[in-house]
Amino acid sequence: MALVVQKYGGSSVSDAERIRRVAERIVETKRQGNDVVVVVSAMGDTTDELLDLAEQVNPNPPAREMDMLLTSGERISNSLVAMAISSLGEEAQSFTGSQAGVITTSSHGKAKIIDVTPGRVRSALDDGKIVLVAGFQGVALDTKDVTTLGRGGSDTTAVALAAALNADVCEIYTDVDGVYTADPRIVPDARHLSQVSFEEMLEMAACGAKILMLRCVEYARRYNVPVHVRSSYSTKPGTMVSGSMEDIPVEDAILTGVAHDRSEAQVTVFGIDDKPGNAARIFRAVADAEINIDMVLQNISKVETGKTDITFTLPRELGQLAIDKLGELQAEIGFSKLVLDENIGKVSLIGAGMKSHPGVTATFCEALSEAGVNIELISTSEIRISVLCQESQLDDAVRALHKAFDLGGDEEAVVHGGTGR
Amino acid sequence: MALVVQKYGGSSVSDAERIRRVAERIVETKRQGNDVVVVVSAMGDTTDELLDLAEQVNPNPPAREMDMLLTSGERISNSLVAMAISSLGEEAQSFTGSQAGVITTSSHGKAKIIDVTPGRVRSALDDGKIVLVAGFQGVALDTKDVTTLGRGGSDTTAVALAAALNADVCEIYTDVDGVYTADPRIVPDARHLSQVSFEEMLEMAACGAKILMLRCVEYARRYNVPVHVRSSYSTKPGTMVSGSMEDIPVEDAILTGVAHDRSEAQVTVFGIDDKPGNAARIFRAVADAEINIDMVLQNISKVETGKTDITFTLPRELGQLAIDKLGELQAEIGFSKLVLDENIGKVSLIGAGMKSHPGVTATFCEALSEAGVNIELISTSEIRISVLCQESQLDDAVRALHKAFDLGGDEEAVVHGGTGR
Repeated sequence: MALVVQKYGGSSVSDAERIRRVAERIVETKRQGNDVVVVVSAMGDTTDELLDLAEQVNPNPPAREMDMLLTSGERISNSLVAMAISSLGEEAQSFTGSQAGVITTSSHGKAKIIDVTPGRVRSALDDGKIVLVAGFQGVALDTKDVTTLGRGGSDTTAVALAAALNADVCEIYTDVDGVYTADPRIVPDARHLSQVSFEEMLEMAACGAKILMLRCVEYARRYNVPVHVRSSYSTKPGTMVSGSMEDIPVEDAILTGVAHDRSEAQVTVFGIDDKPGNAARIFRAVADAEINIDMVLQNISKVETGKTDITFTLPRELGQLAIDKLGELQAEIGFSKLVLDENIGKVSLIGAGMKSHPGVTATFCEALSEAGVNIELISTSEIRISVLCQESQLDDAVRALHKAFDLGGDEEAVVHGGTGR
Repeated sequence: MALVVQKYGGSSVSDAERIRRVAERIVETKRQGNDVVVVVSAMGDTTDELLDLAEQVNPNPPAREMDMLLTSGERISNSLVAMAISSLGEEAQSFTGSQAGVITTSSHGKAKIIDVTPGRVRSALDDGKIVLVAGFQGVALDTKDVTTLGRGGSDTTAVALAAALNADVCEIYTDVDGVYTADPRIVPDARHLSQVSFEEMLEMAACGAKILMLRCVEYARRYNVPVHVRSSYSTKPGTMVSGSMEDIPVEDAILTGVAHDRSEAQVTVFGIDDKPGNAARIFRAVADAEINIDMVLQNISKVETGKTDITFTLPRELGQLAIDKLGELQAEIGFSKLVLDENIGKVSLIGAGMKSHPGVTATFCEALSEAGVNIELISTSEIRISVLCQESQLDDAVRALHKAFDLGGDEEAVVHGGTGR
């Protein structure tokens, strides 16, 4: 008998009919002899409707109350799924994040899981029940207030529960049947991957692949929880994310795929006096505004002027904030100009095989050059190459790289619309 | 500085605009120098929408999960009101029933409050915050599961909190501006009452007046919490429910009003062997089915047959259940016939003045007789006379009694539609 944690996104439970179908799948898993713990996101549009109501009463609502409001969404979907399961003859019990022992920091709207103490979940399982846990939420260790985990929080709840319960697998049900070598909406012959290592999946997520959120993969890797990404709409096997890249024999190491990201903007600070501490001051100002930066480039300073430029990328919605914060530093640091470019895209090639295949960077750059894509910035890790280009050229860049590295398969991918949180 | 507990029904917070208006009233109360605790029901149709969803996934949902589902409604409305208050510049914090220390029995869907331990509410008040508490819900002492209090639960939450916090007053905001001598929709010249004793209000509630639920008045009386029933739509004084009837000087004691009730049905068991224990067996069977009965009549048994009839009233929705349960006893007890009449109504005259005014019963019966209303059953208490009649004659009966006892005023009552839970 295995212990299986399953997570269903909001589109999988968007109405009563879909809730019944999800319940059938859960009951089937139980009747195959497994203990089953299920994490469900809020139903389809619930979160947007609640956000809209909040906006109407207060355009700038307190984060604590926002968490109180939004967590009701998962409470509704989880209790409904429990009812549907019970109508199929199995006993089910739903728990809030707090009841399930999901302990978090008190950072409302973006709390981090500190610990999971699933005593009530465990005893309900021991009683033969199917357990539902509201995803995306927890309770703050210090204030005892209800918190939310931010985007992708339900996936993280599922993985954290799987880790705490020492589950055999964490199944993440979504609109697609797993991870592909590229987004099938851009590359029609993108190939389905049956297995990806944690490290590769981390790089994919960090580079914009939307299948799993970065935090969730980090959690799974840290606690070594195998994550099976599957489709809510079919029973065929998905992608198993598990194991370390280190365990893959060198000759089997391959290139995983091409990821892309449209969510970043680029800020360039021109004409900075090239003195020690100026770059640090710039990045400190950005960090103090709680902005995470991604790629960074500092030009070699021009000998004749002693000036340098710094370019970095950051989440697009925070671009203006960064410009405002840096503007306040202009007198102190004495740079000449700030430019925000919101029309950029990032394309990345990921794979453990990169280490053992020489010439990947050369092929990478040639492919983009042949496709007429200008590289604006480049960064690499042991198993990844990423470049920044104009957003309008991003799809071409993805297709060119996918083709150049021969990542395609024979079957066309099947894609369903929408994603949960 | 006073401590005021306010309760707003679902129709008072049915959309963003109304939520903002409720927030203004709360902030005004705070700025008059009061500590304010607010209990809000679920928004307008939320509960019905959730019930509808539950019905779609499971026509017979487990009560525990139903409570988990329904309690999200108050969570939504309370956090939204907190947000609206915060946009007006006051600090507000919302608590679930569990967080506010509302401890109940574990009887899902109809839990009773055992204790209120409002430690978190008290410290938020001490911090100068306005406190919101989700009505209608609590946490079970033994199972730690979320419970609901059943109909009228939000009023009870408000009164229980007021008692535990030793509040100066509990204000119940509703669609009408207080208690009237009769339902103004039936009696246009019904008079507004500025003051009613707990005992009179108890009788009014027990006899079908929908302003306050019976449990809430019982709670207020037991803990001596003055309850001010007011309109959400105006600022004029409502009805203060407080004080014991015993404290009213005899010469000031008056008749409070006429209440009516369409929610009951009547069951008659014909031809029972008039042996000791048969009546007890009948009432035990009804009680075992958790049916509360209201009025009872046992005819004097006919000497020639040794048979008797028993008639009683009960909540209309439980009428068929009672018939089924009694049917199972027919062989054992040997009665001849069971009849269920769902077309009955009850009209009651209530008032502490009844004790000191002789002839009330006579006037009562004469008035009904003149109005052509047949009395089917009569029951009395120290401060109440109730009779059962055909439902079709109920409105005529209310008007006749209101007129006969000269209860009318000069002003026409103002009535708004809808009621919360």
